[in-house]
Amino acid sequence: MYQSIRQDDLFDLLAGQDEHDLRSYLASKKAADIVDAIEHLRGRQVRTVLAALDGAQKVETFTGLDIDLQLGVAERLDTHQLSDLLASMPADDAARVLSRLGRRRREAVLAGFDRAEREAIAAHATYGPESAGAYASPRYAVLTPDMSTADALARLKAEARQVETIYDAYVVADDRRLVGVVELSRLLTAQPKAPVSEVMARDFVSASVDEDREPAAERMRKYGLLSLPVITVEGAVVGIMTPRDADEILKDELREDADRFVALTDTAVEMPYMRQSVLAHFRRRVGWVLSLAALGLISGYILHVYEDVIAALVILALYIPTIADSGGNVGTQSSSLIVRGLALGDVRLRDTGRILAKEFAVALLLAGVLFLFALLKVLFLSNASDVPANITLLNVGLAVGIAIAIQVVVATLVGAMLPLGARLMRQDPALVSGPALTTLVDITGLFIYFQVCTLFFGLR
Amino acid sequence: MYQSIRQDDLFDLLAGQDEHDLRSYLASKKAADIVDAIEHLRGRQVRTVLAALDGAQKVETFTGLDIDLQLGVAERLDTHQLSDLLASMPADDAARVLSRLGRRRREAVLAGFDRAEREAIAAHATYGPESAGAYASPRYAVLTPDMSTADALARLKAEARQVETIYDAYVVADDRRLVGVVELSRLLTAQPKAPVSEVMARDFVSASVDEDREPAAERMRKYGLLSLPVITVEGAVVGIMTPRDADEILKDELREDADRFVALTDTAVEMPYMRQSVLAHFRRRVGWVLSLAALGLISGYILHVYEDVIAALVILALYIPTIADSGGNVGTQSSSLIVRGLALGDVRLRDTGRILAKEFAVALLLAGVLFLFALLKVLFLSNASDVPANITLLNVGLAVGIAIAIQVVVATLVGAMLPLGARLMRQDPALVSGPALTTLVDITGLFIYFQVCTLFFGLR
Repeated sequence: MYQSIRQDDLFDLLAGQDEHDLRSYLASKKAADIVDAIEHLRGRQVRTVLAALDGAQKVETFTGLDIDLQLGVAERLDTHQLSDLLASMPADDAARVLSRLGRRRREAVLAGFDRAEREAIAAHATYGPESAGAYASPRYAVLTPDMSTADALARLKAEARQVETIYDAYVVADDRRLVGVVELSRLLTAQPKAPVSEVMARDFVSASVDEDREPAAERMRKYGLLSLPVITVEGAVVGIMTPRDADEILKDELREDADRFVALTDTAVEMPYMRQSVLAHFRRRVGWVLSLAALGLISGYILHVYEDVIAALVILALYIPTIADSGGNVGTQSSSLIVRGLALGDVRLRDTGRILAKEFAVALLLAGVLFLFALLKVLFLSNASDVPANITLLNVGLAVGIAIAIQVVVATLVGAMLPLGARLMRQDPALVSGPALTTLVDITGLFIYFQVCTLFFGLR
Repeated sequence: MYQSIRQDDLFDLLAGQDEHDLRSYLASKKAADIVDAIEHLRGRQVRTVLAALDGAQKVETFTGLDIDLQLGVAERLDTHQLSDLLASMPADDAARVLSRLGRRRREAVLAGFDRAEREAIAAHATYGPESAGAYASPRYAVLTPDMSTADALARLKAEARQVETIYDAYVVADDRRLVGVVELSRLLTAQPKAPVSEVMARDFVSASVDEDREPAAERMRKYGLLSLPVITVEGAVVGIMTPRDADEILKDELREDADRFVALTDTAVEMPYMRQSVLAHFRRRVGWVLSLAALGLISGYILHVYEDVIAALVILALYIPTIADSGGNVGTQSSSLIVRGLALGDVRLRDTGRILAKEFAVALLLAGVLFLFALLKVLFLSNASDVPANITLLNVGLAVGIAIAIQVVVATLVGAMLPLGARLMRQDPALVSGPALTTLVDITGLFIYFQVCTLFFGLR
């Protein structure tokens, strides 16, 4: 049974400096584990580990690394070594590394490529970095419609080592158009003399080369595909996306979405936490923190408008955080449910009416509970507070409770409507959730609170 | 090229009531799309769509539905129909449906199963619902170590329709232990006379039957496996997990994690938003909302302690939300980064010292920026406010700014430490983020604010 890498074992081997031991330890490990282990090593150790890997394992490990780690390794290799390494990688992965090298270095490396490899790299340079094309590997199995399934099988056997997978084969016509896809299991069970055109699926799923990478990756996972052809408008295959690509893309996108949700910048470049400098962290966070602080100016203004009300009845100030927190909590709940529902496809824009009706009903129930809680809180917490003679503590409790009840309903509805509104305007629903929402419902909360209090106590 | 389902087309066909049209439309669609479409239909429409599907497509579609939709459909089928349908499903999926039926109904349905099917279902009843065993399908391809690769290929061809996949085959010894796994591509390219034991991989990845489903699913995705053997402590295979299972499990877990993050209950049963009743939504949310409100009692208490300070200097009350919001925003940022880093494996417990050092440095920079912002905010926003003669507005601004600066550093560190602490105590890091964190740093914020103000103005 397979044993994954224990980081401590690896550290011991690296400290021991016995290359043979390290080699034989790593030889039995899967590339995915070596990639994970390398993420926690320092520059010199990374190079030692890579040097201890053999051909295919080395290529697979290097391909799996983050781009910044790849560039760190590339820097220390001489042109010949780097050329060899990149030429053994699928063109889409090699192109991503090459695009980040200096022009001189890139040209020197490309000089070591053969003609076909150079052309594949040149093609990739024309695709956008977040397009499906950028992930199209040219290593796929090609069949023709008129060959027999027996011949097709023989060709797949012969090509098994050169292509990403032989479980899907691509049937290409004379005009270079993709006309069908056939699974290996189908070929195996077909009559050996039957032509491929008879057993191939013509209603295959594909991605266009300019399409965004995310829907392509999602499609791949949804249909459980082992490969996804990426095709031009003319229908010619430029390459295939693999499940590994789809995983990487969906993980990246998840990271980006989570960033937006917690008010970090929506930058496209993404790096693991530990790898980013203090300044990079600061730059990513300060923009949103300042935007939220600026939004907070509105609630600050509202408080100033009611300054004399607070001066007249100081006890009201003590419940400002209660109002703000309750609104933030219920608003975050409803917005998160809707954001997630939209992301998972559970919730659609056409359901807006039913969602708001449901949220309204849920909010009424929550409002009732929190009204009671607030009333009791005032009665018990403020029983030693100074209240003017003409006002009872019960009155204060009722005012706070009523304000909270209204705020809970408003904040719940705002929380539900904002992501739906964002989707309607083709924006990311997650953008208007989390801290942004909390700061926003603070405004409604303070306004409701002081309106209720001035009406209740006839102040002003 | 494949065209997925357009919901409007489906509605038109359902309204048209022409069974033949509906049949031929659905015949060309993939089960994953039919499942998606069904999620938005009502009970009667769901049954009409399922009735229009043929054998394999119907089984695949039904298997892909949520458990509550499956139960809704099952209710309307007679015992014989339901027995047929469940018997054609993989045992793990059938067992999940059967476990939710009433005892009588379940026994009636099982009576229609053959002996082997009944035994497979009985075995599943012994696995925990969130264990790897619960997802083990008994439909896998079995080889013996001593058969030739040619014979192995012939057997896979013959069994292709009965098993989940022939791309992985399981090599089982006489004592029923799993001794190796062999990929079809390896069999195809091997010498036909070579015994399977020579080409199989002995260092296969597996899951134990009692293991939690999530790490098993993650392992499957990490290594890009097409199937994962689920084995007993004795090493016998009870079934295989498929990529579809892994997707479902990881999607479920993502939903659960997101729920915890936004303070919903961590219930194991998960349903799409629209499918849950108002009362169910209320029950899921009220617990956390009340817990957070209870936590808010502490900040309420702090405010009461400083009631006379506020009465003496009302302007201080106006900046309570500013303090609370800034702490909540920066704390949420740092905790979210750490929660995500832990989830993605970018961040480990051993990095705690480096993380806190980095967060401290970032927090100092943010504190500087927010100090300036708060100072300016007080000077401009409060220039019409009443301030006692012995205090200048600049002094108020400095006090608010200093309090915010300290609170930003504290909240950032608390935000980073809580998820790390939770992981250390083997709790879910996401549990102590989001609204829970916001409510918590309100407490530190108010305490810091009033301490700074009393010291600054010599109040009390």
